[in-house]
Amino acid sequence: MQFHLNGFKTGNPHVAEEATDFPGSASNEVDVLIVGCGPAGLTLAAQLSAFPDIKTKIVEQKAGPLKLGQADGIACRSMEMFEAFGFSERVEREGYWVNETTFWRPDTADPTKIVRYDRVQDVEDGLSEFPHMILNQARVHDFYLDVMRNSPRRLVPDYSRRFLGLEINKNEGVSHPVSVSLEYESPNGAKTIETVKARYVVGCDGARSNVRQSLGRALHGDAANQAWGVMDVLAVTNFPDIRYKALIQSASEGSIVLIPREGGYLIRIYVEMDKLNANERVSSKNISVDHLIGATQRILKPHNFEVKEVAWWSVYEIGQRLCDKFDDVLIEEMKTRVPRVFIAGDACHTHSPKAGQGMNVSMQDAFNLGWKLAAVLQGRCAPDFLHTYSSERQAIAKELIEFDREWAKMISAPLKSPSNPNGVDPEEVRSYFVRHGRYTAGTATKYAPSILTSGSSDQDLAKGFVVGTRFHSAPVIRLADAKKISLGHTVKADGRWRLFIFSDRGSKSGPSERVSRLCDSLQSPKSPLKQYTPEGSDIDSVIDVRAVFQQSHRDLDLNTMPSLLWPQKGRLELRDYEKVFCSDLSDGRDIFEMRGIDREKGCIVVVRPDQFVSAVFPLTAEAELSNFFGRFLIAR
Amino acid sequence: MQFHLNGFKTGNPHVAEEATDFPGSASNEVDVLIVGCGPAGLTLAAQLSAFPDIKTKIVEQKAGPLKLGQADGIACRSMEMFEAFGFSERVEREGYWVNETTFWRPDTADPTKIVRYDRVQDVEDGLSEFPHMILNQARVHDFYLDVMRNSPRRLVPDYSRRFLGLEINKNEGVSHPVSVSLEYESPNGAKTIETVKARYVVGCDGARSNVRQSLGRALHGDAANQAWGVMDVLAVTNFPDIRYKALIQSASEGSIVLIPREGGYLIRIYVEMDKLNANERVSSKNISVDHLIGATQRILKPHNFEVKEVAWWSVYEIGQRLCDKFDDVLIEEMKTRVPRVFIAGDACHTHSPKAGQGMNVSMQDAFNLGWKLAAVLQGRCAPDFLHTYSSERQAIAKELIEFDREWAKMISAPLKSPSNPNGVDPEEVRSYFVRHGRYTAGTATKYAPSILTSGSSDQDLAKGFVVGTRFHSAPVIRLADAKKISLGHTVKADGRWRLFIFSDRGSKSGPSERVSRLCDSLQSPKSPLKQYTPEGSDIDSVIDVRAVFQQSHRDLDLNTMPSLLWPQKGRLELRDYEKVFCSDLSDGRDIFEMRGIDREKGCIVVVRPDQFVSAVFPLTAEAELSNFFGRFLIAR
Repeated sequence: MQFHLNGFKTGNPHVAEEATDFPGSASNEVDVLIVGCGPAGLTLAAQLSAFPDIKTKIVEQKAGPLKLGQADGIACRSMEMFEAFGFSERVEREGYWVNETTFWRPDTADPTKIVRYDRVQDVEDGLSEFPHMILNQARVHDFYLDVMRNSPRRLVPDYSRRFLGLEINKNEGVSHPVSVSLEYESPNGAKTIETVKARYVVGCDGARSNVRQSLGRALHGDAANQAWGVMDVLAVTNFPDIRYKALIQSASEGSIVLIPREGGYLIRIYVEMDKLNANERVSSKNISVDHLIGATQRILKPHNFEVKEVAWWSVYEIGQRLCDKFDDVLIEEMKTRVPRVFIAGDACHTHSPKAGQGMNVSMQDAFNLGWKLAAVLQGRCAPDFLHTYSSERQAIAKELIEFDREWAKMISAPLKSPSNPNGVDPEEVRSYFVRHGRYTAGTATKYAPSILTSGSSDQDLAKGFVVGTRFHSAPVIRLADAKKISLGHTVKADGRWRLFIFSDRGSKSGPSERVSRLCDSLQSPKSPLKQYTPEGSDIDSVIDVRAVFQQSHRDLDLNTMPSLLWPQKGRLELRDYEKVFCSDLSDGRDIFEMRGIDREKGCIVVVRPDQFVSAVFPLTAEAELSNFFGRFLIAR
Repeated sequence: MQFHLNGFKTGNPHVAEEATDFPGSASNEVDVLIVGCGPAGLTLAAQLSAFPDIKTKIVEQKAGPLKLGQADGIACRSMEMFEAFGFSERVEREGYWVNETTFWRPDTADPTKIVRYDRVQDVEDGLSEFPHMILNQARVHDFYLDVMRNSPRRLVPDYSRRFLGLEINKNEGVSHPVSVSLEYESPNGAKTIETVKARYVVGCDGARSNVRQSLGRALHGDAANQAWGVMDVLAVTNFPDIRYKALIQSASEGSIVLIPREGGYLIRIYVEMDKLNANERVSSKNISVDHLIGATQRILKPHNFEVKEVAWWSVYEIGQRLCDKFDDVLIEEMKTRVPRVFIAGDACHTHSPKAGQGMNVSMQDAFNLGWKLAAVLQGRCAPDFLHTYSSERQAIAKELIEFDREWAKMISAPLKSPSNPNGVDPEEVRSYFVRHGRYTAGTATKYAPSILTSGSSDQDLAKGFVVGTRFHSAPVIRLADAKKISLGHTVKADGRWRLFIFSDRGSKSGPSERVSRLCDSLQSPKSPLKQYTPEGSDIDSVIDVRAVFQQSHRDLDLNTMPSLLWPQKGRLELRDYEKVFCSDLSDGRDIFEMRGIDREKGCIVVVRPDQFVSAVFPLTAEAELSNFFGRFLIAR
């Protein structure tokens, strides 16, 4: 954490200086109106609240914050994003860590009993520096609400607001073209209509999204007729894996996905209901929590399972549905109109909860959109740049839907047995699970080449920083104070681009010639840094340059560094000492080896504000860098 | 973190259920009155606020919480204690990490210039799982205030209260024998006198402690005539180690201790003032911050050093002073009276700030006292047990004073040179610093044998858990969910004793015979657990038994465990799955090897509520265990 740049301040450094409001801004006019306080809405709100000059409103139909959420799985990739928002360690402290997943199937000797047949480390070594976590969605909301409350905008949701409809004024030159009608219900039940005028509106209002419907868009796909029950319970059992994530398949009573919950006692059980009884046709109306408990007890045999308290339960039908575009612009209009209304999260895609992807993918939707909206609102990018949101995220959602369909089918399918030779082999399920570990960790997301993601990258210079995927963090040592840092944690949710310069071999105590030349060139008037950084702003306020050297921090002399790498910033022109890193040689493999970086040539890795790798360039690629940023950034 | 034991609850699990007040308790009667909201007072208040049945008041002369503190160094040992209070990760995120200390001395070729002659890793490998930190004392206060606010007692300080005096009623049978007069100043300046009646009073009111004076006690020692300046500044410099803790000794301009501060820009400089000018006799009245800056600039030559902002500065004289007893009982009264008034922290001992020990030792005073007061107030120990506070902590303070005197002398002494052959060699300073690393990390504290610390322990069974020192944590794997845990982090600031059972070799998939027999015996009616645990309370509410096995977690079967190791607890009789641990074999050395535990015999390690090792016993030592606890615990 960096603070005191513009002078010493007492108090909590997480609380930003409050932004003053814009002179003359009307109270019902906002830059962005977010509809819905779910994971997508709050991620977006938290991101936008970081910018003192962006006015955001977030409204929610419910009367207050969520107390009990349904989603609970937090993928490694989401933890990486939480780190950018500053609360990963709160989740680590409070949540359940999924360390291993165990697999149970019918005992071949006595198929009425289940036996454990495998256990798998849940996150493969090196996949992420963060664990796979389970934590009540309501607590994730709380953490975002804290970020918003402490932000320059001191953003808090407006509750008890129901979205009624919107109108888009398509005339050019209208500053706030979207008019939204909201119905406010006061605590005494009185209802009034409020109108908000926004530059942009984002519907994060769930699977039954009214914003989506107001755009005339719909979710497409099938509502499969497989019913599952889900319950959060406190129970006493002698099933030994009750504190492990477990996939349990019985011979004839169906399957369970068991997910231990935070706090050491609570567990979530997803239980297949359609095999509850041979002649019982499931429909959610007939199913009680006793049915869920009964099925669980039969599947867990020979173990006992006594439920002491049910915290929450529900029955749902699995369906995979997807919206074909995530904004208000028809494909044929894309050349002539910029998007003004977006949808994100469940408003765009719904799927079964068991892959643990719902909340995670929704938050990534919003993380993708947030910095883009900020860049356009701040005049750093042209508005047509916003088309990339739907194109990037719709493709990811499509993959998720397909993954989920296959996974849900596999878990629900009858098991292979002498009488059912075409059934699914438990071993197949396990192997699918393992192969898709990266997918469920959220680290497999890869954006296709676009203006934001270079198709012609010098990928060979850094094989482990795959263009289009998230920047995969690795440990380094900070030169100025010998602190061990996870390099990716320097990418905060602040809307900035990063250039990571990985040095070639260079001289012993100083930077190499190539790195010095590159840094000099980045400070020349024609460089992207100078072209796109507003006059009077810190040199790293749009594009943040950091460097990693192959030497040990004890060998490198700070005073030999180009001034770009310890720049003077802020009102007092203090030096920023957190730009230069060295190899962490403490366990043999440094970042160059871990990420396959060419030690002879070095490279530049360009990282987006949402932590994805845009490009890998040689150290001599000043021109390519200029071209790259010239595609979408607007010169000052 | 464990929660939901007595049923599912929504909301922040850090916020405890609020305790209802005691029927008929008078509003001006409390169990403990704490005078002073410094590090000692807040540690004690946070500890006591954890007990729903203990009524604590903490008063402070100032009108509100501290905004800017002087202390900043946080030793590893304090971090271990913060972990017990649940906020170590907040300090890690916000503070400066002292990773390496560098040493500078005059260049032999040109003594007008300083050169770096060594750098030392600040915390030796394996000394603690926590780093050495620097963070503004005011933020540590904030974290304690959060713990207190979220506690069952919802404790908040009463500000604007000045301690006027106290009277102790020495008659037997008086429930609240200490009467304290406080002067309350309301925001409009009106003053009123308040009287508080307390069972115990603790003066944490600093070096000029009025509580200490009201006991007729005094600090003894010399106010040395060495003046030092200290300043927190934002500066621009080309001194390359400006973000390292550094000890800088010039040839003729004196010494600096440089301590980088949190936030990446701020630095603290301790600068020797008595060599400011040969014919200038220092006295705090003549010295301005410009003198401090000037001296710093001369010492740092040939580097430049331009101060941009001074956040805080002060001048002080080093003195090492100590009180000879930390409570109200004269030595000759000890057999006949129990203590009613205590002093802690700077009220007992003052010393120079440069060893970074002040705040740390003060907090450890309070941590030592807190659980003892709770045990007596809850009727678990007899009141004469409270004598151990002064005897244990006075001895530690005496050591600190001696250490500090030597260290301060060494840093202030003239350097050895051709004209001063008897001066101190910089190499001597460096070597003293390194040798005392454990001391400054706070991990060298060792209590002498007493009723609380067994003198006749079987230390050979676990050479690394030294009786009288803090329980040195090490990694283990939790059996029930394969989570990697630092074993010491199971010792929370909850007033409970811990028995760690380290297993002998035993059978492959189950506990050894000795461990099973020991656990059975611990559940028999004559065992300390049964004797000292109140009827109807959870089996681990006074003495918490946990076990560590040598097997891998994949080999051990939970269902073979004695019921004591996965006990049923709480209203719902849920099983506690967090008692059994296995070797962490991931990097070759497991806890048995790291702590020198006898693999053939195993052992029992008894750990106090303040995390210190009381005793090491063989696995067969049921009788010794009973004897040990019988010395001070009261059977129910």
